[in-house]
Amino acid sequence: MGIKSKDIISAVDLTREDVEEILSQAEVMLGHLERKKRLNKLQGKILATLFFEPSTRTRLSFESAMTRLGGSVIGFSGTEGTSVQKGETLTDTVKNIEKYCDCIVMRNPYEGSARLVSQAVDVPVINGGDGSNQHPTQALLDLLTIKVEKGLKKLKVALCGDLKYGRTVHSLIYLLPMFGIDVSLVSPKALSMPGWIMEDIEGKYGISPEIYESMDDVISWVDVLYVTRIQKERFPDPNEYERVAGSYSVDNRLLKKAKHDMMILHPLPRVNEIKPEVDDTPYARYFKQSFYGVSLRMALLDLLMGTGGSD
Amino acid sequence: MGIKSKDIISAVDLTREDVEEILSQAEVMLGHLERKKRLNKLQGKILATLFFEPSTRTRLSFESAMTRLGGSVIGFSGTEGTSVQKGETLTDTVKNIEKYCDCIVMRNPYEGSARLVSQAVDVPVINGGDGSNQHPTQALLDLLTIKVEKGLKKLKVALCGDLKYGRTVHSLIYLLPMFGIDVSLVSPKALSMPGWIMEDIEGKYGISPEIYESMDDVISWVDVLYVTRIQKERFPDPNEYERVAGSYSVDNRLLKKAKHDMMILHPLPRVNEIKPEVDDTPYARYFKQSFYGVSLRMALLDLLMGTGGSD
Amino acid sequence: MGIKSKDIISAVDLTREDVEEILSQAEVMLGHLERKKRLNKLQGKILATLFFEPSTRTRLSFESAMTRLGGSVIGFSGTEGTSVQKGETLTDTVKNIEKYCDCIVMRNPYEGSARLVSQAVDVPVINGGDGSNQHPTQALLDLLTIKVEKGLKKLKVALCGDLKYGRTVHSLIYLLPMFGIDVSLVSPKALSMPGWIMEDIEGKYGISPEIYESMDDVISWVDVLYVTRIQKERFPDPNEYERVAGSYSVDNRLLKKAKHDMMILHPLPRVNEIKPEVDDTPYARYFKQSFYGVSLRMALLDLLMGTGGSD
Repeated sequence: MGIKSKDIISAVDLTREDVEEILSQAEVMLGHLERKKRLNKLQGKILATLFFEPSTRTRLSFESAMTRLGGSVIGFSGTEGTSVQKGETLTDTVKNIEKYCDCIVMRNPYEGSARLVSQAVDVPVINGGDGSNQHPTQALLDLLTIKVEKGLKKLKVALCGDLKYGRTVHSLIYLLPMFGIDVSLVSPKALSMPGWIMEDIEGKYGISPEIYESMDDVISWVDVLYVTRIQKERFPDPNEYERVAGSYSVDNRLLKKAKHDMMILHPLPRVNEIKPEVDDTPYARYFKQSFYGVSLRMALLDLLMGTGGSD
Repeated sequence: MGIKSKDIISAVDLTREDVEEILSQAEVMLGHLERKKRLNKLQGKILATLFFEPSTRTRLSFESAMTRLGGSVIGFSGTEGTSVQKGETLTDTVKNIEKYCDCIVMRNPYEGSARLVSQAVDVPVINGGDGSNQHPTQALLDLLTIKVEKGLKKLKVALCGDLKYGRTVHSLIYLLPMFGIDVSLVSPKALSMPGWIMEDIEGKYGISPEIYESMDDVISWVDVLYVTRIQKERFPDPNEYERVAGSYSVDNRLLKKAKHDMMILHPLPRVNEIKPEVDDTPYARYFKQSFYGVSLRMALLDLLMGTGGSD
Repeated sequence: MGIKSKDIISAVDLTREDVEEILSQAEVMLGHLERKKRLNKLQGKILATLFFEPSTRTRLSFESAMTRLGGSVIGFSGTEGTSVQKGETLTDTVKNIEKYCDCIVMRNPYEGSARLVSQAVDVPVINGGDGSNQHPTQALLDLLTIKVEKGLKKLKVALCGDLKYGRTVHSLIYLLPMFGIDVSLVSPKALSMPGWIMEDIEGKYGISPEIYESMDDVISWVDVLYVTRIQKERFPDPNEYERVAGSYSVDNRLLKKAKHDMMILHPLPRVNEIKPEVDDTPYARYFKQSFYGVSLRMALLDLLMGTGGSD
């Protein structure tokens, strides 16, 4: 009856029970969305979307979710036009904004900022991405996609691409082992999963994910290929970016070796890491994820602000 | 019972039946607006307003229209803060956003972008202006204004100003002949209506609009003077702009020669092409157009997302 | 039965009866907010928030207020993406936007711009700050805070900091004497209250506020310390800013001399003028002001657009 934490800051905080409750509620919401049922569960409630950093997908997905539940949205995108430009601290900003709303979702370039905010305010806070640290709602929607499309069973999932700076995989790696899903890691050495996360996962779940350097090494046996963008903006050296970006690319040639029911996920946006020719194959599930994302976020908003019960 | 196309991309696509249905529904909406009747026809529906290019009027007009119908709006204005900055293709962006909404209205600087988007997504798409190409909802609201103010009868309309880059006139020139309205063109030679549109109009309607270079040539006999802005940003050469901008300007001196019931329309914003002294004359109808615009867009949103029937 | 003016442009326009009606309605709204009562008084109405200048607090506070009343919001923040960039006059812009909405709230860097707009349009206009001139809704929420926290009785209030450019104090100084509240002024000489306001206050209320240069001079006997930011962006000379900024700062050392029930207000954002250590003292009331602000703006929106009667 209600997830333990009033905030969704990091996948590390979530228990298996939390995650099960969220996914279960998300599947209820998914049913409502598919039947185009009109909901009023959060009528009169206000979500504040504070995006201190560029976002289309996450912001609009939350705004859609809130709207689908009958609620309203206020907020900003980008720091231009905000008090931050006048030298206000983040804490001061949110201590004001909490007076205007019932829940805050924030994206901020600084790691740890979501935690800081959750401690400063009384309303529930959802982390919409804090630098290279965490992006828990994306990881939850990834997990929901796996659950709906394949079921949470003994699957083999490979996380590929930028595992060093990619906040999505930093969240997802904590959720998959909860359900006995086998995780492998595929990245260039310079972009491998941070050592402290590897140690944390080993301490928490007693597992040590296999490490690979090429998608060719895993393509024949994975059930889920989770591809992430090699983000140019995370690289101090543009030459290093150019060197590795081209070598992590999914195309139809690679897919010839894949299991027939393998599926490709991607948090998007993608640039070159999945070729457009792949979009029309049965492997591609990355646009469908966006749809699951709305229901996942509806579930979270409902659990944090509403009754959380059945409609 | 419903316009044929699920999208409003170009005036060229619209049949006379489509246009009649849209205008007729818009007049119903106009009645609701004037009686301040509260509507809930699109309650629970979401319009995504994707403005990749500056707009106040068109964006707010659509947002007002959607809200007046009881619906909700999500979206962005400007590409800062969007995935486009991360190198995402337009098609990828909208394939995600369609999962969040029930209809997309887009403004984009590239000609043909609205068509591209309409082919990539399943939800209805409305073109809110694609470069110098088309702006069909503006042309429809212009036509609605003419219908309400004068009736769609044997009128003489002069399209004046920048006919080369002005997307509004590129749309309007296709709609006027449908109703037997006589079209004349008034522009500096360097800004004349593109030849391919002239040929298209001749092929489609068997007419060849008269061409003039000065508003003085038409002022005495036109029923509608449709003035457009000589847009500085469309000119590669600022000197060329300065040379022609001053010579296309409506003032009270010019209006002395006009028919007593002539009316002036303008898609706005205007800069110097209509002098403020004209605002208080009975000829000015360009601010009233904004009001008609809301009802026109309500009609479109209702036809594309709602039942389209009577309230 | 309804405030006299259809617009809220300047505190100078407001009568004591107006202010009493607004505060009284705001207290009703405050009760609704505290009981989390869902209101639908402005359902179907549209507020346009036109922020030509940076704002987080005022914009989101109005948007929250409108939403809490069941109404909807359209608008923009920043001039990027607006017709202003295309050379449109402010008057033209708002003469269009009024066709899309039922009320306009505007922030604009030019003094007098709110008055200009209120004269150009028929819908009610609320001034959300016009340059260094006026910010009447902030002053009203300050007064509401004083009323709820202390009652409108014989209090001593000191306005401190930048009294020259601070639009909030330019509004508040007109409201306090209405209720017999004693006003003192504390500022560096270079930032003292403009002479014409001093003369206006003397003419209007027959009073002449005491002038001080240090908060030490007033701390022992004031009931309310109203602190404002020494705004760097208002200073032509950055050296002058550095010289005075540090000397107007509230810390626990200063507060040792204060009355035990003194309270500190601040329009926020604050930078260095109130030390964070003060936040946890019983004197601090500046975050609570944000909550009162929503109810004050609900009252205004309801009075201008709704019935203004009891729910």
